[in-house]
Amino acid sequence: MASKEMYALGSQASVIRDLFAYGQQQAAVVGKENVFDFSIGNPTVPAPACVKEAIEDIMETRESAAIHGYTAAAGDTAVRQGLADFMNQTYDAQVRADNFYMTCGAAASLTISLKALVESPDDEIILIAPFFPEYTVFVQNANAKSVVLPPDTEHFQISLDALEKAITPHTRAVIINSPNNPSGVVYSADTYEKLAALLTRKSQEIGHAIYIISDEPYREIIYDGLPILYVPKFYKDTIICYSYSKSLSLPGERIGYVLVPDCAADAKEVYTAVCGAGRSMGFVCAPHLFQDVVLKCLGQTSDMNIYDENRKLLYNGLKEMGYDCVYPSGAFYLFVKSPEADAKAFSDKAKKLNLLIVPADSFGCPGYVRVSYCVDPDMIKRSFAAFKKLMEQYQ
Amino acid sequence: MASKEMYALGSQASVIRDLFAYGQQQAAVVGKENVFDFSIGNPTVPAPACVKEAIEDIMETRESAAIHGYTAAAGDTAVRQGLADFMNQTYDAQVRADNFYMTCGAAASLTISLKALVESPDDEIILIAPFFPEYTVFVQNANAKSVVLPPDTEHFQISLDALEKAITPHTRAVIINSPNNPSGVVYSADTYEKLAALLTRKSQEIGHAIYIISDEPYREIIYDGLPILYVPKFYKDTIICYSYSKSLSLPGERIGYVLVPDCAADAKEVYTAVCGAGRSMGFVCAPHLFQDVVLKCLGQTSDMNIYDENRKLLYNGLKEMGYDCVYPSGAFYLFVKSPEADAKAFSDKAKKLNLLIVPADSFGCPGYVRVSYCVDPDMIKRSFAAFKKLMEQYQ
Repeated sequence: MASKEMYALGSQASVIRDLFAYGQQQAAVVGKENVFDFSIGNPTVPAPACVKEAIEDIMETRESAAIHGYTAAAGDTAVRQGLADFMNQTYDAQVRADNFYMTCGAAASLTISLKALVESPDDEIILIAPFFPEYTVFVQNANAKSVVLPPDTEHFQISLDALEKAITPHTRAVIINSPNNPSGVVYSADTYEKLAALLTRKSQEIGHAIYIISDEPYREIIYDGLPILYVPKFYKDTIICYSYSKSLSLPGERIGYVLVPDCAADAKEVYTAVCGAGRSMGFVCAPHLFQDVVLKCLGQTSDMNIYDENRKLLYNGLKEMGYDCVYPSGAFYLFVKSPEADAKAFSDKAKKLNLLIVPADSFGCPGYVRVSYCVDPDMIKRSFAAFKKLMEQYQ
Repeated sequence: MASKEMYALGSQASVIRDLFAYGQQQAAVVGKENVFDFSIGNPTVPAPACVKEAIEDIMETRESAAIHGYTAAAGDTAVRQGLADFMNQTYDAQVRADNFYMTCGAAASLTISLKALVESPDDEIILIAPFFPEYTVFVQNANAKSVVLPPDTEHFQISLDALEKAITPHTRAVIINSPNNPSGVVYSADTYEKLAALLTRKSQEIGHAIYIISDEPYREIIYDGLPILYVPKFYKDTIICYSYSKSLSLPGERIGYVLVPDCAADAKEVYTAVCGAGRSMGFVCAPHLFQDVVLKCLGQTSDMNIYDENRKLLYNGLKEMGYDCVYPSGAFYLFVKSPEADAKAFSDKAKKLNLLIVPADSFGCPGYVRVSYCVDPDMIKRSFAAFKKLMEQYQ
């Protein structure tokens, strides 16, 4: 008496959520300070001061209907103009307010973009392992097929040979995610150039554009002075999905956007379909107060130094103990090679030490675990004894 | 290169939005005070003081992560417990926190409920004219068929004979909406009793439950001391879709819920499918700050007296001029019979007098117009001359 597909999605256990719930239980048993929960990607750094200031200012100076009323479905025009100005100044993006569609966060940006692009159930969306597991759910929602590219475990960039082989006449889009969840890797300009060359050639070959859907919630969480690259500069047929969840530590407020730049193939049609897809799923408008908050916080972020310090502490600490870690250049995840082939078994051993780390099988990358370091730095230090004990089991 | 279906949805003109946009343009030409815009259902009464107080209190007393972090996908437990307590005290609802799934507003409540219930593309959802036009879009999103019941233009309750004929073995659910947009009518206890008897009998006949999806954004906007009826008390297989858009004047903040009471057939399966449907469309959690705001404002509403005064002013004014009006008992719409068969032609004549009223053809009820009175009372008074001139064309 309910949809079997939706029931399955609703009852599916999530490895991450389960570990997180286990951590909460264990805390009651062994004490909160003795549980080392690296399971969840929930920003711990507070929102920057501008968020609170913006909310207070808006509440003080505007009428109720101007704060809480409907905006246009695509978002308030002044907000979208502000975003366009910011992207033009920062990345020379050459975009207008009308290229932006405000959304209820990154997940909505993705479901809307996919539903806008997919024309037929034969359409294929290429996912590059390791990838955020919900991508497959969102592709299923758009009634298309997920095609999973195996990970490039050497550099965690993109295996272009594998990508070339994966492209068929049904390929509609490739989802990329840099800085990457879960690998923490940032794609280089070289990767984008080669990716663009390949997609351009293959688009011509198959007779229609292959879109990049660039999922960028971690855009500003990038270290070592690496530049933030604007993907449409490398490949014109790019749709950007953004969220303020991580950059402004606002994951619960559900605010982000889809950007369809004019340079993308059939940009107007795709943008119109984005509006239609949002409408069809009941996204009436993105939350109004937070549309105005992000406008007032343009260019600001939470304090990324805290994540950077965590990164160094954890990476250096684990390297020293003999763990094989992917060098993290962005996001707040350390990707660690399991000392045994079965990352689930490794994660289970860690769990016995109250060390909660996520096997990356569901991210399409068996043999690795994700260690989320958006945590209290003291917890990282306290966790080292457990990480050491864990490694000793393999020596 | 984009989904044709989504493109069509995105490019479709909306009569209401077009009239609203025309009004904005005309205001620049003839002056704002000479345009009488009754087109849009955007609450004009400010949010009650508790909303601002709640926001200020939360911002002052809680840590950033506790304000803006992710909540559980179904919503914060304390919030859902508060909703359950309130519903139990107010309606003796006998519900628990786990019966509630917090959503991004009424539209999301509907798309999620429909996607959770629909099992096959043959499934039919019955819509009772007049109805909110987006229902057909939401049914299409769930990949089911809309079956439209003609309006009961005598009482604007439900034609039970017509409903009985419309039910087939494929009938999955009936969407009801009382207080009704656009008719302003409230279903009586008698209507619910007869509806329940019919659906109970037909459910047995076809061998599976027919659900009521009760869309209740106007629940508290009800006049003349009419009681608010809790639908599951009449018919157990009821799923309630609620939103705070109208009751707290928060339409832009996108906050509401789906309530699957335990009494509904396969309640656990349906609730789990609701969680799955929310997940599949990318509704990660309902906006966190406003989850906590509605908890702090339980049982409060915007000042409904303002709408009630507008209602009397408009209803009495138009009756006196000879208009045939449906008596409005709830919501903030007056439903007026067009003096000529073609309500579009009538609306066009009104438009020439800068009087913006919506033909109800897209609501499944030709021959009527919707006059939205969530407006400034002075505008209603100023509009009477134009309404008079309009009627003179038919005398």
